[in-house]
This record gives sequence, C-alpha cells and structure tokens, in this order.
Amino acid sequence: MKSLAILGPGLLGGSLALAARRAGGYRVALWARRSEAVAEIAAMGIADDVSTELRAVVAGADVVVLCVPVGAMPALAREIADVLSPATIVTDVGSVKVPIVAELAEIFRGRARFVGSHPMAGSEQTGIRAARAELFDDATCIVTPDAASDPAAVAELHAFWQGLGGRVIDATPAEHDEVVALISHLPHLVAAALVQTVLAENPRAFEFSGPGFRDTTRVAAGPPAMWAEILGTNRDAVRRSAEAMIEKLRGILTLLDRETPMTEFLTEAKTQRDRLRPLK
Amino acid sequence: MKSLAILGPGLLGGSLALAARRAGGYRVALWARRSEAVAEIAAMGIADDVSTELRAVVAGADVVVLCVPVGAMPALAREIADVLSPATIVTDVGSVKVPIVAELAEIFRGRARFVGSHPMAGSEQTGIRAARAELFDDATCIVTPDAASDPAAVAELHAFWQGLGGRVIDATPAEHDEVVALISHLPHLVAAALVQTVLAENPRAFEFSGPGFRDTTRVAAGPPAMWAEILGTNRDAVRRSAEAMIEKLRGILTLLDRETPMTEFLTEAKTQRDRLRPLK
Repeated sequence: MKSLAILGPGLLGGSLALAARRAGGYRVALWARRSEAVAEIAAMGIADDVSTELRAVVAGADVVVLCVPVGAMPALAREIADVLSPATIVTDVGSVKVPIVAELAEIFRGRARFVGSHPMAGSEQTGIRAARAELFDDATCIVTPDAASDPAAVAELHAFWQGLGGRVIDATPAEHDEVVALISHLPHLVAAALVQTVLAENPRAFEFSGPGFRDTTRVAAGPPAMWAEILGTNRDAVRRSAEAMIEKLRGILTLLDRETPMTEFLTEAKTQRDRLRPLK
Repeated sequence: MKSLAILGPGLLGGSLALAARRAGGYRVALWARRSEAVAEIAAMGIADDVSTELRAVVAGADVVVLCVPVGAMPALAREIADVLSPATIVTDVGSVKVPIVAELAEIFRGRARFVGSHPMAGSEQTGIRAARAELFDDATCIVTPDAASDPAAVAELHAFWQGLGGRVIDATPAEHDEVVALISHLPHLVAAALVQTVLAENPRAFEFSGPGFRDTTRVAAGPPAMWAEILGTNRDAVRRSAEAMIEKLRGILTLLDRETPMTEFLTEAKTQRDRLRPLK
C-alpha cells in the first residue's frame, strides 16, 4: 500500500483521489485549506483521510501531488518540505512549468524528489463535486523533468500517471510551456475573445447559435481567476502564439474572394484536425 | 399524409428524411444526382422513394426542401419550378441567405411559396451515413421570410421545423447572414486558423493536446469545399466579424501583464458563455 497525499480539493485533486482508489494500492490523504471543505469531502467518502492539517497529511507520504493554483504552490511547498522523506516523490498539476518547476525544485532539493507534471485533463467545470475517477483515462499527462531530476523518480511518476489511466509524454519545462501556450492557453484566449466579439457585434446572437459555437467556446466557461494567473505566468509564449494566430487570421481573410485557395486552406486544416488522436 | 420532397442526400437531407419518418404523417421522396447514391440510399430504407428523376420527385409535393450546396440551388430551382403547384412550400437549408433567398424567391414567384430556412444542426460529419433522426431535436431553425413572403407559408414552415424537433426563430435574410457570420462562419475560420497556427509553430503540438483543443477545433473538420463556398458567399459579414475578432485579441494581449483586468475579462466571457442555452 502506497501513501498518496493530495493537496487541494478541486476538480483535479478530487479526481486524483477517485482515480487512485479505483486503481487500488493507495491510501489516499487529502488536504483542504478550509474546514468546511473538509467536512463536505469527508461526507463524500472519496479519500481515506481528509484534513486541514497540512504537515500531518504529507507526513510519511510516498507520493505528494500539489493540486492548488500555481501561485499558491511555492508557499505550500515551503510548509511541507521539511516533513518529507528524501524518497518522497513530489509533483504538481500546474499548467505552467518553467517558473514553477525551478522554484519547487529549489525548495525540495535534498528533501524530496520533485518532478513536475501536467495532466491535460481539466474541464470547464470546477470543484470536487465535478470530480470523477475517469478524468485521467487516456488523458495526456505531460511530465517535465529537467537536468537535475532523479531518473528513478521520473520513471515512478510515469508509472503513477499510467496507473491512473493516463498516457505519459515527457517534455522539458520550456518545451511544455511553449507547446501548452499553443494547445491550451491560446485556445482559451481565442474562445473568450470569440464570445466577447460575437456579443459586442450582436447582443442577440446567442439565441441563434448551434452546437458548433457551443463547442468552439466551451473552454471559455473555465474558472477566470485560475486562467488569468496561467495566462499571465506564461505571458511571453501566449503573446507569441496569439500574434501568430492574428497573422494567420489576416492571411485567411485574403482568401475570402478566392474559393480554390480557401478550399485548399480548409482542406489542409481538416486533414490536420482529423489527425487528432480520437478519444476513447 | 403530406408529401415531402428532399433534394440532396447529404447529412441534412438524410436526417430530414429520418426525422420526418419519426414524426409521422409524411410520405418522403428523396432526390440524389448520382444513381450509385440512389442504390445505396434505397438499401438504407430511409425514404419511401429515392430517385435521380428530379421532376418526378417533386411532382405533387406539399413541401420541398433543397439540401444541396448553396451554389447548386438556383439551377436546381429552375429545373423544378414549373412542376410545382402554387400551394407547394419550398425551403432550403443553406447557410447564407441574402443572395440565395433573393434568387430563389424570384425563380419560384407565382409558382410555389418559397421561404428560406437554416437549421443550425450541421456537424463536422458529412454524408447520409451520418444522418440521424435526432439531428433537429432542440436545434435552432432560423426561418428567413422577407417582405414578399406569404405569412401562411411562414407559419406552415414554422410548424414543419417544430414537428421535426426544432426551435424556430425568424430573421430577415440580412439579419441571418450577419448573425450567422458571427456564430458559425467566424468560429469555422477561427478553428481552422487555430489548427494551422498551432502546427506551424510546433509540428509536434497535437501529441500534447487534450479535450479543450479538440472541442475548440472540432468544426474545422467540416467539409472544406462547402465551407469555402459559404465563407465566400457571406464574405463581407465574415470579414467584418473576423476583423472585430482580431481587434478583440489585440486588446486581450494588453491584459497579459495585468491579472485583475484579465480576470475581469475572462469572468465576463465566462458569464456570457454560461448563458448559452444548455443542450437537452
């Protein structure tokens, strides 16, 4: 039986607890900051222990997963670092990696084995009520070792995510931030911009909309404060990707009068989109 | 028993046939241009009659629905106009209305009662194999009468779409084209641009993507030639909406360094997105 400590009772933390229970082989402890949350989660029965006592939750843990917003991670890490054993694997689920991995690796140096993670398994829903054991099934889990990472810890972390149903890809923190700006942060900005553009141009437009508009804008329903923090933390890569998007849109506008080149452009986009791994 | 003639055996035509059968009260005839398509559709058993004989299919019909690409509609309309009775209701499912409604209304003047329609019920899938009776359930069906439309025909067309499960909204052809540029044509351009931007910036990016990217880009998998025609036909409204989108994106980029205004922007977008009518 391994001991798994999950810090933060949101959608990801709660789903991790459920997925670990489903996988079996874990004793799961969940930390929440607020005592009201503890009472609610205890009543849901999704973890073996639920507590506001941070150091008690992580004491003796084999694996610790930080599931709080990226801005809250360093303070939390400092509170737990001296309770951990050097064998403990610590990871996080933050959506930005360069600043977080550098800061957390420094805090845990010599005290635990830290390697960053980012499961691409969020949702526009939030909170532990939306948690589900299947959240990581077939989800891409990006693991972000750097030069100082312990290879054995990286291998154990791979096995951890795979055991919860995930599909692991390694990337350096810098590679991660660049690629996630493209596939996650830019789509969020675009979806929010699309919602606001449409309403600014025609306040009645939503009454006419169908499933295409719904899907294209779904991610814009995600938690605003969390996303503002992510976008700000990864601002350079987000800015580059958004500027590339603007240039691409400007280019496409020149094709509106030319049906054959427009068909070719849309055919290429469709061919590429059809390459996306199908969901199971 | 009403006689319904569906011209064009694609996703929409096939789904109309299935929905009309499910609703009951219709004898359904389906026209396809190619004899191989006729054989395939006859074997599927989704219509009472399937034929390449256009004039025979529409003869005596109470309702005729044009389900071919917008560019093919005028020629088709000219072929059938003199077979119809003045009581026949003719509509279409085209995604652009100003040019089509003007041209078709002129062709059918005095020969049948034409009123345009646009059910917001497509999909990135195409072809009769993807057809399903439920396609119009709770779908917004935009009906586009103009000053010359027969009010009784408009009322009957409302009842027709409602009977197939749809939710009807009226708009003038001009209102339709402006609003659909925003909620359908712009999202298509944006999704295709997003796919191509991401791959141009990082050819490996798709390996990392999750459900958010999948949903945001879904519509880009739609049929390219059909979409190039739609975008070109509605080019002025599409251009205006895309330019508004570019301006909005530029504005958001100025918020990347300012977490509070960015949170406010994303909160407003989320609040608006949450207003979208839930799917049943």
